[in-house]
Amino acid sequence: MPMIRAEFISGKSEEQKRELIEALTRETARVLGVREESVWVVLQEVEAENWGVAGKRLSDR
Amino acid sequence: MPMIRAEFISGKSEEQKRELIEALTRETARVLGVREESVWVVLQEVEAENWGVAGKRLSDR
Amino acid sequence: MPMIRAEFISGKSEEQKRELIEALTRETARVLGVREESVWVVLQEVEAENWGVAGKRLSDR
Amino acid sequence: MPMIRAEFISGKSEEQKRELIEALTRETARVLGVREESVWVVLQEVEAENWGVAGKRLSDR
Amino acid sequence: MPMIRAEFISGKSEEQKRELIEALTRETARVLGVREESVWVVLQEVEAENWGVAGKRLSDR
Amino acid sequence: MPMIRAEFISGKSEEQKRELIEALTRETARVLGVREESVWVVLQEVEAENWGVAGKRLSDR
Repeated sequence: MPMIRAEFISGKSEEQKRELIEALTRETARVLGVREESVWVVLQEVEAENWGVAGKRLSDR
Repeated sequence: MPMIRAEFISGKSEEQKRELIEALTRETARVLGVREESVWVVLQEVEAENWGVAGKRLSDR
Repeated sequence: MPMIRAEFISGKSEEQKRELIEALTRETARVLGVREESVWVVLQEVEAENWGVAGKRLSDR
Repeated sequence: MPMIRAEFISGKSEEQKRELIEALTRETARVLGVREESVWVVLQEVEAENWGVAGKRLSDR
Repeated sequence: MPMIRAEFISGKSEEQKRELIEALTRETARVLGVREESVWVVLQEVEAENWGVAGKRLSDR
Repeated sequence: MPMIRAEFISGKSEEQKRELIEALTRETARVLGVREESVWVVLQEVEAENWGVAGKRLSDR
């Protein structure tokens, strides 16, 4: 049943996204003691202009 | 006040999206005993490459 | 794969929560043309003091 | 540590998005008594066709 | 229609939560040019043991 | 900047939660090529009665 949601700045490669899903699934199943088949992972890519830290958009830094 | 968020793989038709909003609103209002006017529904379409099950991207299955 | 998240003010009965999960699953599967087994529903109960509309907490109205 | 997520109908200007990140950061830091550097803001723009109120899509109203 | 979600470590006062809802509503309405009545704010309080930064739980720092 | 959110059925031990934050942070930083200090992880524990699969609450299975 675990649901893992990963939000990060868009621009990562297909290979990185594939590996991130695999790694987050493996570690979640291992630590929580559940089957990998029961783990969902959703990647949410966010434009730098839509992510602010300390009041500034990452696209403006 | 209920807020319903529906996440699913992108590619559904306009008519399906219209009907999903209508159905989720109707059932939520009916079961929770609130007015339909007070129910918000947000649809979040996710690319198959960004949704993983059992460590694999749906686009890779 | 659809994930449905329902947020509402806490205080609903066990029976309402059971029926809401059933109804949201049924309608999502029907409209999107997927198996009910592939639909997850998560209920998120929010205290009235933590939900604001028009700048006022629902617990203060 | 605060994380602020703002969801709204797409179509706002770059300047509005910049100002919204700045204003939400400033007020969160002020009210919660934390440094602005510790506040993240993520803007989530939603198409009018994917946002329903009272069972109708905003794009259909 | 804007929905603002604020996540922060639990332990803030009732007065801070009331003021945060008011401030986030006011600024969102002002910047996006919408009525305050159309802005929802949900506060999500997170236990320090459930929030990690740099791999460490805030409760362990 | 990555934000990782892990939702799972409540009842896991303190040690599991500590290890999950550490593992999700490590793998996210490794795969996305960012510093661990820039990764936030939020754990969201959900009661079995509030999580439905195939229309049934996990607490009813």
